[in-house]
Amino acid sequence: MKNSNEIPDFIKGYGKVKLYNENKANEKPQDKILKNIQESIIKSNLISGMTISFQTNHRNNNNILNLIIEEIDKLGINDINLVVSSLGKIHEPLIKYIKKGVITKISTSGIRGEIAKEISINNILKNPVVFRSSGNKVNSVLSGKLKIDVAFLIASSCDTMGNFNGIEGQSAFGSTGYSMTDTKFANKVIVITDNIVTFPLGKISISMDYVDYIVKIKSLTINTNFLNSIKLTKNPRELIIAEKAAELLIKLGYIKAGYSIQPGPGGSFLAICKFLKEYMKKNEIKGSFLSGGISAYLVNLLEEGYFENIFDLQSYDVVSAKSLLNNEKHIEISDASYNEILSNLDIAIVNATEIDIDFNINLLTGSNGIIMGVPTVTQDIARTSKITVAMSSCMRKRIPIITKKVTNVVIPGKDIDILVTERGICINPRRKDLIKILKKENIKLTNIKKLYETVTKITGVPKKPIYTENIVGVIESSDGKVIDIIKQIKK
Amino acid sequence: MKNSNEIPDFIKGYGKVKLYNENKANEKPQDKILKNIQESIIKSNLISGMTISFQTNHRNNNNILNLIIEEIDKLGINDINLVVSSLGKIHEPLIKYIKKGVITKISTSGIRGEIAKEISINNILKNPVVFRSSGNKVNSVLSGKLKIDVAFLIASSCDTMGNFNGIEGQSAFGSTGYSMTDTKFANKVIVITDNIVTFPLGKISISMDYVDYIVKIKSLTINTNFLNSIKLTKNPRELIIAEKAAELLIKLGYIKAGYSIQPGPGGSFLAICKFLKEYMKKNEIKGSFLSGGISAYLVNLLEEGYFENIFDLQSYDVVSAKSLLNNEKHIEISDASYNEILSNLDIAIVNATEIDIDFNINLLTGSNGIIMGVPTVTQDIARTSKITVAMSSCMRKRIPIITKKVTNVVIPGKDIDILVTERGICINPRRKDLIKILKKENIKLTNIKKLYETVTKITGVPKKPIYTENIVGVIESSDGKVIDIIKQIKK
Repeated sequence: MKNSNEIPDFIKGYGKVKLYNENKANEKPQDKILKNIQESIIKSNLISGMTISFQTNHRNNNNILNLIIEEIDKLGINDINLVVSSLGKIHEPLIKYIKKGVITKISTSGIRGEIAKEISINNILKNPVVFRSSGNKVNSVLSGKLKIDVAFLIASSCDTMGNFNGIEGQSAFGSTGYSMTDTKFANKVIVITDNIVTFPLGKISISMDYVDYIVKIKSLTINTNFLNSIKLTKNPRELIIAEKAAELLIKLGYIKAGYSIQPGPGGSFLAICKFLKEYMKKNEIKGSFLSGGISAYLVNLLEEGYFENIFDLQSYDVVSAKSLLNNEKHIEISDASYNEILSNLDIAIVNATEIDIDFNINLLTGSNGIIMGVPTVTQDIARTSKITVAMSSCMRKRIPIITKKVTNVVIPGKDIDILVTERGICINPRRKDLIKILKKENIKLTNIKKLYETVTKITGVPKKPIYTENIVGVIESSDGKVIDIIKQIKK
Repeated sequence: MKNSNEIPDFIKGYGKVKLYNENKANEKPQDKILKNIQESIIKSNLISGMTISFQTNHRNNNNILNLIIEEIDKLGINDINLVVSSLGKIHEPLIKYIKKGVITKISTSGIRGEIAKEISINNILKNPVVFRSSGNKVNSVLSGKLKIDVAFLIASSCDTMGNFNGIEGQSAFGSTGYSMTDTKFANKVIVITDNIVTFPLGKISISMDYVDYIVKIKSLTINTNFLNSIKLTKNPRELIIAEKAAELLIKLGYIKAGYSIQPGPGGSFLAICKFLKEYMKKNEIKGSFLSGGISAYLVNLLEEGYFENIFDLQSYDVVSAKSLLNNEKHIEISDASYNEILSNLDIAIVNATEIDIDFNINLLTGSNGIIMGVPTVTQDIARTSKITVAMSSCMRKRIPIITKKVTNVVIPGKDIDILVTERGICINPRRKDLIKILKKENIKLTNIKKLYETVTKITGVPKKPIYTENIVGVIESSDGKVIDIIKQIKK
């Protein structure tokens, strides 16, 4: 193409001129759909030393992460920093690749099972695991502290242009919330799906803008018992604790129109909702939102009109995944948005592997010092909610939950306001306001030190683990600072 | 908080330790809602020399950009690079701030009215305007070539956390598509709205993750005649051209099941849809999608089932905005996604201020050399569609549209396949395939050079503008290279 105007090589106020060349202008955008995981790794330009991420929000129902690492190893790539929401039983084949040096760093909210034991006891990972809550991880990515080179994601439906969701298709798993920040900030994004559909996808959770490559595999799921509903506990001790916790929140005036709560995922945590529901029904109270990991019991509360909305970061069962698809009051929320709404969260209910007399909570290691837990967002909700209630039995299989000093601090005591156990209620002395109200209401309170003494009289004081000098884990607090370290266990 | 484990200052494989400090840990996230535009500019840390963006997808209906620049000036900030989708009559108060040096750079798809004249004739802007199509601008932002420091955006509804849309509220304007890439990539994002609603907003177009500040103003709109429907042309010459163009596309086999078309926004462009619709009805053809700027006539085609989807980058009228809210087949599309779907676009219909005998098109300047047009996505659709048809009268007010050399090249001739005028049809000689088919179909074709001669016999050849040596505009092609320059007019 000849031009009527002579174009200089450099234009003041614009800079160096790259001239239009008609022979190079019409390059077609390449097709995003690739043959297999290996091709996607090659196209992503992944090399040794880089950081990859994978969100295991399906938990134990797929081995896709294992397949990815296997292909990375086949390509001779190693020294990978793995950013993963959690690692569990299904990921045990990764032990081989950790030992081989394919994976040399891990950033995660928690690890269960053999991998955790191997790291704690045999120090198989080259560098300490960095334990980050979901909120801390999001902030690390947003601030650029944690750079993800290649994000691998799972979609139950993905269209030919890369729009995807987790709510349609035969492997529907619900919210893609935990994947959203990775998708938006990783240098390359690879979607793995067993269901490619015609463009455009009806309900788009994550937009094609962010997706570089799509890989179709035969099936996303390998565990057919995945996504079974979490049932309300029938354990009488857990029911007593839940009832007491509900009563306290009512007496303290937190259960009022427009309140919000994150009850935690387990069956004993759902029980608190059962008791709150009775009170809400009687007093015609409608809450604002339920948040976090969502199961059928919470969906029911939404459908019955006890709450305005559910904010779903992770769907725990098929009922939740379906509700997310069909109920517009059930809202899929990104991990970054979730971080923001926590400033509106009134009540956080948390669990504890250990809690000490300063109200510090351990969720990551057992009293034997071995890594075993997955706290996900627990640090974040404890930090930001208006009131945080820890619910726990005083002992588990004759191991005391209440200790003098937790083996590892995961949640600082200042973030815990109340501990409810089957043997008494303890209020953090910082919360004089709560103590004052509860005394007026004639609620019997127990001093946590006294409770500790009572419990250890029954259980005895367990032996402290003996450590080597090697640090196998660094625990970051919700605000990204180091709150504790985990050392290797001496055999 | 004392810790049971001694934490070193430096951990091998982790790095320098920033220790958790309980007194600093619980900083509350700040409220996003600010008092006014001035406060948002201050909080955004905007300083002289930075780049701001504003998408004028409402076109002439608000003066918000003027208010922003006024406040920037009041704060003593200058040397601003303004990234704006277009500038028109309503922005004429900005002339003062351009002359004053508050705005020293502009990146835009086009400029109309007095600002354009002042730049062309009096060279009031310190640096040349960079003319970028929407697609080119998106790619410039995605690649990091164009860094936006502060993006100002408009929302007709925004919740207290910053989720927003353009489809609800008294000032609903439709798609926020043009704002999406800015929102995702700007360092700071400020949403201006006249309608703050309770969290969470029902239909979220852009998520709170991206929003830093929210400013409420009294009203978004100042022109009550904004968003009036574009009517089908009644001009007989335009109807003849549209009918011919439709006939050509039919004969060439482009109007078949699943085809897609971007017909362009004006009333004469809608006429082509009228003729295609008749053919589609008779032959029971259903198309895939309509894209681009959307008006009531196209919404009607969707509702009557002539197309599967509308991809809406910009809504031209109230009917489109309402359809976007209510019809799930009418899809809001980000500017970045729009760029991607263009690879699936079959037919692009484009206009021309001038077209020359090499099929180059000018959309930015008049034959007098003065800036006057707003091409938005026209370069992009011409580049990527399978067939591009230019529709134009041969002359306008005795000024020839067909010229020997366009005053400025905006779309290279190689991207234009067919020119349809009231005096004949010209096929780009590159498209031998089309010529072959049309000859078989006994369609009379005209050589563009002969058409040029016929037209200039009637109109005469207009005088070429006389320029100074100053470059006032740099025109980039759809792929981001320099395709032409615009020089200052000699008075």
